[in-house]
Amino acid sequence: MRQVSLARRAERIAPAGGASHHGHAIPFDSGDGFPPLFPDLTAAAHRALTTYRDETLQYGGRRGLAELREWIAGYMNEEGARVAADEILITNGAKHGIELVCQLLLDEGDALVVTAPTYLTAIPIFRSFGAEFVEVGQDAEGLDTDELQATLQRLKQDGRKMPKFIYNVPDFHNPTGVTMTRRRREALLEIAARHGIYVVEDTPCRKVRFEGTAEPTLKSLDHDQTVIHVNTFSKLIAPGSRIGWVAAAQELVARMLQLKSDGGSSQLVQRIIVEWCKAGNFPVQSEKARHTYRSHRDFMVAAVKRDLPQVSMVEPHGGYYVWLTFPDNVDTNELTKCAAEAGVTVIPGSKFYAVDTRKGSPWKHQMRLAYSHASPEQIDEGTRRLAGALQRLHRGAVRCSGKSGERLRFAIGSFAYWKHHLQAHIVLDKAHIVRRIGGCFQRGDLGPSRDRTRAARLTVAE
Amino acid sequence: MRQVSLARRAERIAPAGGASHHGHAIPFDSGDGFPPLFPDLTAAAHRALTTYRDETLQYGGRRGLAELREWIAGYMNEEGARVAADEILITNGAKHGIELVCQLLLDEGDALVVTAPTYLTAIPIFRSFGAEFVEVGQDAEGLDTDELQATLQRLKQDGRKMPKFIYNVPDFHNPTGVTMTRRRREALLEIAARHGIYVVEDTPCRKVRFEGTAEPTLKSLDHDQTVIHVNTFSKLIAPGSRIGWVAAAQELVARMLQLKSDGGSSQLVQRIIVEWCKAGNFPVQSEKARHTYRSHRDFMVAAVKRDLPQVSMVEPHGGYYVWLTFPDNVDTNELTKCAAEAGVTVIPGSKFYAVDTRKGSPWKHQMRLAYSHASPEQIDEGTRRLAGALQRLHRGAVRCSGKSGERLRFAIGSFAYWKHHLQAHIVLDKAHIVRRIGGCFQRGDLGPSRDRTRAARLTVAE
Repeated sequence: MRQVSLARRAERIAPAGGASHHGHAIPFDSGDGFPPLFPDLTAAAHRALTTYRDETLQYGGRRGLAELREWIAGYMNEEGARVAADEILITNGAKHGIELVCQLLLDEGDALVVTAPTYLTAIPIFRSFGAEFVEVGQDAEGLDTDELQATLQRLKQDGRKMPKFIYNVPDFHNPTGVTMTRRRREALLEIAARHGIYVVEDTPCRKVRFEGTAEPTLKSLDHDQTVIHVNTFSKLIAPGSRIGWVAAAQELVARMLQLKSDGGSSQLVQRIIVEWCKAGNFPVQSEKARHTYRSHRDFMVAAVKRDLPQVSMVEPHGGYYVWLTFPDNVDTNELTKCAAEAGVTVIPGSKFYAVDTRKGSPWKHQMRLAYSHASPEQIDEGTRRLAGALQRLHRGAVRCSGKSGERLRFAIGSFAYWKHHLQAHIVLDKAHIVRRIGGCFQRGDLGPSRDRTRAARLTVAE
Repeated sequence: MRQVSLARRAERIAPAGGASHHGHAIPFDSGDGFPPLFPDLTAAAHRALTTYRDETLQYGGRRGLAELREWIAGYMNEEGARVAADEILITNGAKHGIELVCQLLLDEGDALVVTAPTYLTAIPIFRSFGAEFVEVGQDAEGLDTDELQATLQRLKQDGRKMPKFIYNVPDFHNPTGVTMTRRRREALLEIAARHGIYVVEDTPCRKVRFEGTAEPTLKSLDHDQTVIHVNTFSKLIAPGSRIGWVAAAQELVARMLQLKSDGGSSQLVQRIIVEWCKAGNFPVQSEKARHTYRSHRDFMVAAVKRDLPQVSMVEPHGGYYVWLTFPDNVDTNELTKCAAEAGVTVIPGSKFYAVDTRKGSPWKHQMRLAYSHASPEQIDEGTRRLAGALQRLHRGAVRCSGKSGERLRFAIGSFAYWKHHLQAHIVLDKAHIVRRIGGCFQRGDLGPSRDRTRAARLTVAE
């Protein structure tokens, strides 16, 4: 019998379940790239495995390939940063960069600032470190710096622990799509510097801009080594590369590279990327990505306007995502389940909030749709399916089957419905399924009953 | 002014210094692969980037490519393990696997068992988690299970915290080269099961066996999910791949893959590896590696016998390393510095001990030499240089220069020498360098004086 308990960090994250198979569902949930856009890396790979074979297949430095770090420094400095190659640490993608920043700065009980909503994948990473979230709102100009200042001031006055850093996605914010204005960027840096805390700038989609002019990166406005910049080649070249970087003050990089205990990121992939970049492919690929994702965005915005007229949305000027707000009577957690049954996968707003504020929160009616991975035809069809799921969610009626005399609790799509419309239990006396259409039913909807065997074969019919 | 303190974990690891450049030193320090052995991966890479392009350049699952996990399961099960593909998690090399095990199991103040000595790269990882080390000795049969049992029993009786796991390299132990006997392996598992703690089996060099028959892996003797098996393709194919794996109970894998916050290991490299393996290259490559490293081992053993007759060593039957014990009057920390000056890089025994037991410890006279990376000619020349450095260390005399009237502390190679032979300070009255030969002097040798400017230009002469 094992006596060993897991580490607190491991306990804080739910173990992975079995893979959720949606069969041929249309993927509005994932920020995957559009496969026809993936570049041809065969020549770069061939060079990496011949000309650079001895380097590529050997252990490399933890810091990453010098040539790649130099290329990245040039790439960042083109936009006004003043980053040296040794202020860059190559990581296994941006998420790995976020994890390293957490390892660098967060002890259990430490605080950090996030926007509400924020990047869903970062939330469990932060949470696993036992961090406390300080949420700050945002509007069309991005993170609300007045609220930030007031919040930090209040924490200080109350003698509470100050956050270690402010995490934000300033360009085409994930999930809202908002880009921070220059005024707000400057205010953010000024506030962070005044309180002596770091800003973590995560900007994977920065180059995927469809209209308008880019605002300067936070890193390029940073005169005080306040900014830890996290980036990735996933959205620029291909997600499968799993190569990203962190740009930060040298002393922070010197710590993070010691914490990066994987023996360095793949030399092979780093060499492929730098060969591909140095061959001048980057501008062409960026332009292609902008063109393709702009057309996906256009399809998605048009489809939502056509099929979901009750929804409000801010049209994004770049990035991979559109953020929808449904009317107050739509619970997007429920809609997500119905949509999956209807063959389109989406992510409900609730997943993007670090603090679980179940009461009075906007998350209940929000939803993120990704237009990056699906083709224009799929975008059309997926939006139609989502609209169909919404209709079914609001029109459903229920039939049940079970063992004779058994009492079942059940729900029609939304748990709210159950509470408002069906406040009684139903006693069944026959063991048969009345009719199966739609199929919005999910086991998780069964209300407070813990005994799932009693609720088997519950079905939904229109 | 930044107010933010680093996380305790980050504080526990020294920041990386500048890269230590040894110019054209002969590398007896690194477990790098021998470049002429690296396989031709161009065909596999081409397939990965054409036939499998859409999969390869897309995000993959965190668990790793199913086909690769299946191949690994088959590979492990050939040796008697009963591992399923979903008990395997692909990692970015074995070190990353060790890190994930730590994330899974270690909180600050938790204990783990290591051998004395143990794998040097794992030590700072364990240490960064704030873990306490319980050291257990080893002999020609490997980890001393009687001592282990007695130690665990004592901890239990004293009501002390029990270790979370026992970390060991059972095949061609790093650094000692010892392979655990079957008897000891069974005893280890029995003791671990009895105390309800895990065994972490790290066996990167298992297939690099020159003579004799392999003992069963701990994983294959494990009937109780006691073993967390860590492995890598670094020593099998090429270090630059940065692909390894952990094989463990499903519920542990389900936790570790959530802690692996890098978005999955490189799909591209995983596909290259599995294509290469499935094309049947593995047995040929293994045989080539065995043949080459056996000849390196033979050269190294012969060279040590010839040039360092005063040294005792256990000839390894596989792996990358030979472990030397010098006579008691040789401080291998000092010898390491002299050797670097003489153009050969080695790692002193002290680096392989998790607990800093400066008094009466054998580490002072031990040293690990790697024969993997250096060519036979380099092995010959490097051993000669090491012998030369040892001679100089024991023959050195000192001349100093400094400002007129200034008092300098200094050392000849070994700090012990300074203490025993030169117990007085020397007052200099001239500002010139007497003679510069050899050059074993290192700034770090300057004894307790903190004011380095006063010690400038100290030189060593024969």
